[in-house]
Amino acid sequence: MNFASDNTAPVCAEIMQSIALANEGTVSSYGADPLTARLTRRAAEIFETDLVIYPVGTGTAANALALATLVKPYGAVLCYEEAHIATDECGAPEFFMGGAKLLTLPSADGRITPPQIEAAVARAIDGGIHHVQPEAVSITQATEWGTVYDADAVAALGATCRRRGLALHMDGARFANALVHAGCTPAELTWKAGVDVLSFGATKNGALAAEAVIFFNPALAAGFERRRKRAGHLWSKMRYISAQLSAYLDDGLWLRNARHANRAATRLAEGLARIPGVRLLQQVQANELFVAMPEAKIAALEAANAHFYRWIEVAGEPLPVIRLVTSFATTDNEVSDFLALANHP
Amino acid sequence: MNFASDNTAPVCAEIMQSIALANEGTVSSYGADPLTARLTRRAAEIFETDLVIYPVGTGTAANALALATLVKPYGAVLCYEEAHIATDECGAPEFFMGGAKLLTLPSADGRITPPQIEAAVARAIDGGIHHVQPEAVSITQATEWGTVYDADAVAALGATCRRRGLALHMDGARFANALVHAGCTPAELTWKAGVDVLSFGATKNGALAAEAVIFFNPALAAGFERRRKRAGHLWSKMRYISAQLSAYLDDGLWLRNARHANRAATRLAEGLARIPGVRLLQQVQANELFVAMPEAKIAALEAANAHFYRWIEVAGEPLPVIRLVTSFATTDNEVSDFLALANHP
Amino acid sequence: MNFASDNTAPVCAEIMQSIALANEGTVSSYGADPLTARLTRRAAEIFETDLVIYPVGTGTAANALALATLVKPYGAVLCYEEAHIATDECGAPEFFMGGAKLLTLPSADGRITPPQIEAAVARAIDGGIHHVQPEAVSITQATEWGTVYDADAVAALGATCRRRGLALHMDGARFANALVHAGCTPAELTWKAGVDVLSFGATKNGALAAEAVIFFNPALAAGFERRRKRAGHLWSKMRYISAQLSAYLDDGLWLRNARHANRAATRLAEGLARIPGVRLLQQVQANELFVAMPEAKIAALEAANAHFYRWIEVAGEPLPVIRLVTSFATTDNEVSDFLALANHP
Amino acid sequence: MNFASDNTAPVCAEIMQSIALANEGTVSSYGADPLTARLTRRAAEIFETDLVIYPVGTGTAANALALATLVKPYGAVLCYEEAHIATDECGAPEFFMGGAKLLTLPSADGRITPPQIEAAVARAIDGGIHHVQPEAVSITQATEWGTVYDADAVAALGATCRRRGLALHMDGARFANALVHAGCTPAELTWKAGVDVLSFGATKNGALAAEAVIFFNPALAAGFERRRKRAGHLWSKMRYISAQLSAYLDDGLWLRNARHANRAATRLAEGLARIPGVRLLQQVQANELFVAMPEAKIAALEAANAHFYRWIEVAGEPLPVIRLVTSFATTDNEVSDFLALANHP
Repeated sequence: MNFASDNTAPVCAEIMQSIALANEGTVSSYGADPLTARLTRRAAEIFETDLVIYPVGTGTAANALALATLVKPYGAVLCYEEAHIATDECGAPEFFMGGAKLLTLPSADGRITPPQIEAAVARAIDGGIHHVQPEAVSITQATEWGTVYDADAVAALGATCRRRGLALHMDGARFANALVHAGCTPAELTWKAGVDVLSFGATKNGALAAEAVIFFNPALAAGFERRRKRAGHLWSKMRYISAQLSAYLDDGLWLRNARHANRAATRLAEGLARIPGVRLLQQVQANELFVAMPEAKIAALEAANAHFYRWIEVAGEPLPVIRLVTSFATTDNEVSDFLALANHP
Repeated sequence: MNFASDNTAPVCAEIMQSIALANEGTVSSYGADPLTARLTRRAAEIFETDLVIYPVGTGTAANALALATLVKPYGAVLCYEEAHIATDECGAPEFFMGGAKLLTLPSADGRITPPQIEAAVARAIDGGIHHVQPEAVSITQATEWGTVYDADAVAALGATCRRRGLALHMDGARFANALVHAGCTPAELTWKAGVDVLSFGATKNGALAAEAVIFFNPALAAGFERRRKRAGHLWSKMRYISAQLSAYLDDGLWLRNARHANRAATRLAEGLARIPGVRLLQQVQANELFVAMPEAKIAALEAANAHFYRWIEVAGEPLPVIRLVTSFATTDNEVSDFLALANHP
Repeated sequence: MNFASDNTAPVCAEIMQSIALANEGTVSSYGADPLTARLTRRAAEIFETDLVIYPVGTGTAANALALATLVKPYGAVLCYEEAHIATDECGAPEFFMGGAKLLTLPSADGRITPPQIEAAVARAIDGGIHHVQPEAVSITQATEWGTVYDADAVAALGATCRRRGLALHMDGARFANALVHAGCTPAELTWKAGVDVLSFGATKNGALAAEAVIFFNPALAAGFERRRKRAGHLWSKMRYISAQLSAYLDDGLWLRNARHANRAATRLAEGLARIPGVRLLQQVQANELFVAMPEAKIAALEAANAHFYRWIEVAGEPLPVIRLVTSFATTDNEVSDFLALANHP
Repeated sequence: MNFASDNTAPVCAEIMQSIALANEGTVSSYGADPLTARLTRRAAEIFETDLVIYPVGTGTAANALALATLVKPYGAVLCYEEAHIATDECGAPEFFMGGAKLLTLPSADGRITPPQIEAAVARAIDGGIHHVQPEAVSITQATEWGTVYDADAVAALGATCRRRGLALHMDGARFANALVHAGCTPAELTWKAGVDVLSFGATKNGALAAEAVIFFNPALAAGFERRRKRAGHLWSKMRYISAQLSAYLDDGLWLRNARHANRAATRLAEGLARIPGVRLLQQVQANELFVAMPEAKIAALEAANAHFYRWIEVAGEPLPVIRLVTSFATTDNEVSDFLALANHP
């Protein structure tokens, strides 16, 4: 029973096979290979628009490179105060942006809102030359609390960004999980709603090491390739990352994997909600659950070798809180076993 | 006939198999997995010393992270003026070091020498507060001209570095190729000769995306893990990079692959040396050849679909120059075919 | 009536005279002059300890250089969320630190407390490799709300910092104003209370362009001089900044100027407190006042050519808020005239 | 006899007086004062064009801020290999540019040429994504060897830059000395010849601490003000730097001071050229001399309390070399005394 993170899972079979198929003969390095070219075409079809897509090996690289391309070193990014980019990337955005700041906004469920953007912009303008000026907004999809911005919520933020001259970045480390919940098209959840750049994650949803930065407006991508190179994120044997992403997008694998993970999360949520003394802190819309429960119950689960993280600092919550994450590889038995243990008085 | 680069080659079978074997069940992410732990032990055995080894996905990342750990943002690195770090990483070292400079030294064969180090240090000291002060020396093994520092040459540089308080970094993107030429132990070519940090390359010699930074003095590694994380080079599914490096080091695979590549290069060199009007610019000690030949011959080779790079700017060389690189995957037939074409009048 | 800022004031006569006296003959540049040497001795006497003092031209430079010396690029600084370094230096700390973060803490009066430090450290440790780790605390003296940390409050923070291995930086842009309020010695308000580094401001209190970074533990200053040089903050004609600081420290000029400014602020505060509908938001302990009053009154003051800033975003305050700042040059008449205007119904 | 540097000189009387005159009453801070506004108008008149001018306190700041505005963090600047920006600013350009590189070019007299620019651009293009691409050229006026680019030489570089899409920056730390030698107008030596940005120095030629960055194409200045602020180079009491620059430009003071310094240099040069065993290494066109002479003669000069720098590393020069710099404050007696000493057998 490993619910510690979706990145403790292995690589799904289809992606392993795609890597193996790519392992034939010599091809040009650094992305000038047929698989990488094909990837761009596939992504354009799926997102129903012209785009540029740049594979990288990690989500932190995707986010930091995307933001550095959008924001000048003396600028700022608006984001949720517990955003992954703000708390879990050890300062990567600031490093890649050359010192630009993240200006953080509070949120009860991980989602930030247009009025918060407006207020932060007004505050920055009032500060004049002395205060960093926001140049982009970054939202996480699904959020750090496992909730999802639906297409309307993204579109509202997109409209605010347009009005204020801000770029809109989406950290889609769990984009597939959000998409299958939102029930719209990839285009509707991104560029049609005003998203300029998407960090498109695959690693947590079955890949080995494969993320991509997608610019829906290719003009915004100027300099990205050089930034990627000088950050050491241009793989010489690029075909192997493109092979992962191709398999991920082909035949709906990404959506199947995400649906599987979300379903497991929903089953867990439904089961846990019925247990007295156990409380879900947020709506479960993707593949993460935040669960308050008595310490004795948590200790019993740990003793039974269930893996998950304890969460600190949940304001106003008297009980200890744990996070559970499901993945494409979570089995029905794992869910059932966990619920059985949690139900034990 | 692809001699464009050793990174146009595929992944060797043993490494693909190791990746497949690693693809079983859940394991802790970010390097807290058994394969990564085992890798450290294997590296320590092979280098006959305590060490810390940090896997990363690209050679540029390995070099830039290593140098950033050794040198302060207001310091400098001494290196060959055509070093990969100086000319082919799009400014990655300067980016990771936070603006520290590379102070470059000329060389006829890619190797730099103790007197050059001494002169550069004297010059910097004379410049006082106004001039950046060197804190490290970086050498490439095998060099950018396909030559190799033998253990004595490294040791002479190591002694100079100790005397001047400089750290010694080795860019070992082709370390295995250099080692099998040098005919000494890994320890003799590195820490016993004064090397503090090694960028240990595997990708060019048969891996998918696997390099490692090895600190022979673990005290020098302070901060490395945070630098790797904030640069986006900490893989969440680290097992898959450790699996590559483990297979690479097991059973001497790395040395077999390098010997194969070097032998192919030697065959090419011997064959080309016999062709009238063709000249090798450097001793062929590893798996790279730099060859001057008439334009007509180059054009004929290209027309026959032989892949290689044309080199610009070889001072004093009247003929055009091409670079040929062999790899673990180079076949005898490729060598024979190339020589046959080149022999054609 | 100019209460816009203490930096709208001119240079006090004693400092102008000191600059003029320094303007004689040739002296060594870049700080190797007798006036700069004398400055170190004077500062050591006044602070009753060995120290190193580095003059720079602006407070932003002093703060950013000090923090960059204390904190690694992948580290963090804890400070008040409205600290000058966080909101009014356009990202200078992040730029100079190479991307390290400011982790900000709320406060009702500008002062942060040991429990806040402890909680932030615990949170960072819990975040492991993914979360930046605090390496320093920065406090402002007097604070951004015109309040003052007394020696005990500083000492409590100093003790927490020692326990957690954090350096303690004090942004003393208005250090003299705080000191004359605190009623203790310079030593008691700084190093005896655990302050490691002080940004010692003079510009706002009568100088032309003169601030200094004082390290009470010279071992912490390693690299500072190179950082200052490479940031363009090493004046070639250093004697003219040292002349300002020498005059500032001689004969108690700095304390006289600060007492004058604080007295003017106190008179303003006492007068304003008596006006119906006018409210002071904070205790007036130095030379800044934050005053809530009806819009009509503010407009009347502006119409009468009184200069001050309107403050935005004071949570929970229904009335508009203005900031008034006094200086060494504020006259009794200015205070009286302002109060007369404000008293007008 | 102080020929160590023009920055060992004091401040000239006219500039001291201008500072004193500015010291009256309160004015808006951070450059929103009448003196700063007037400065822009005066500079526009003198350079006969619309321009923006930003005062800063040091030449290193002027150069580094100018280059950071012109060049992206993954770009490069072409300059002479002994340029001040490359050897005497402790890495300031790299720091401010966020890691961009200086690609250096050799020169016998400090001047670089269009063919060198062309070759460097060709080399960079050949390197593709792996090699930093030049975005600007920086030349020093007068050069580090005391020579001067005449208007034609600048124009030739300007034309090359236009053709290659490069910005042209001039480090004019000694611009006035170069201008009075070149015998043309300020416009002819700058924007009419293709210079986009000028670091306009005054400190070495009589000011206290006053340099300015002048953009002849205001569109290129985007972001400069924020960069200046976040680098700590926006003086709060800006009027005192603008007062210096205004006095410097008024009534031709800058040209008078420069002519005085150049004449002293010429007298020294003519006198030294007549002394057997003494040799001038370069044409003396501004206020710096590089003189080869026997060690005994140098030692005798030092013993007589003459101040100057010994130069190291002059390739191919068997004699030791010293540098002499004259200034607006150099007296006829100093020159005569020095020559008398040097003439002594």
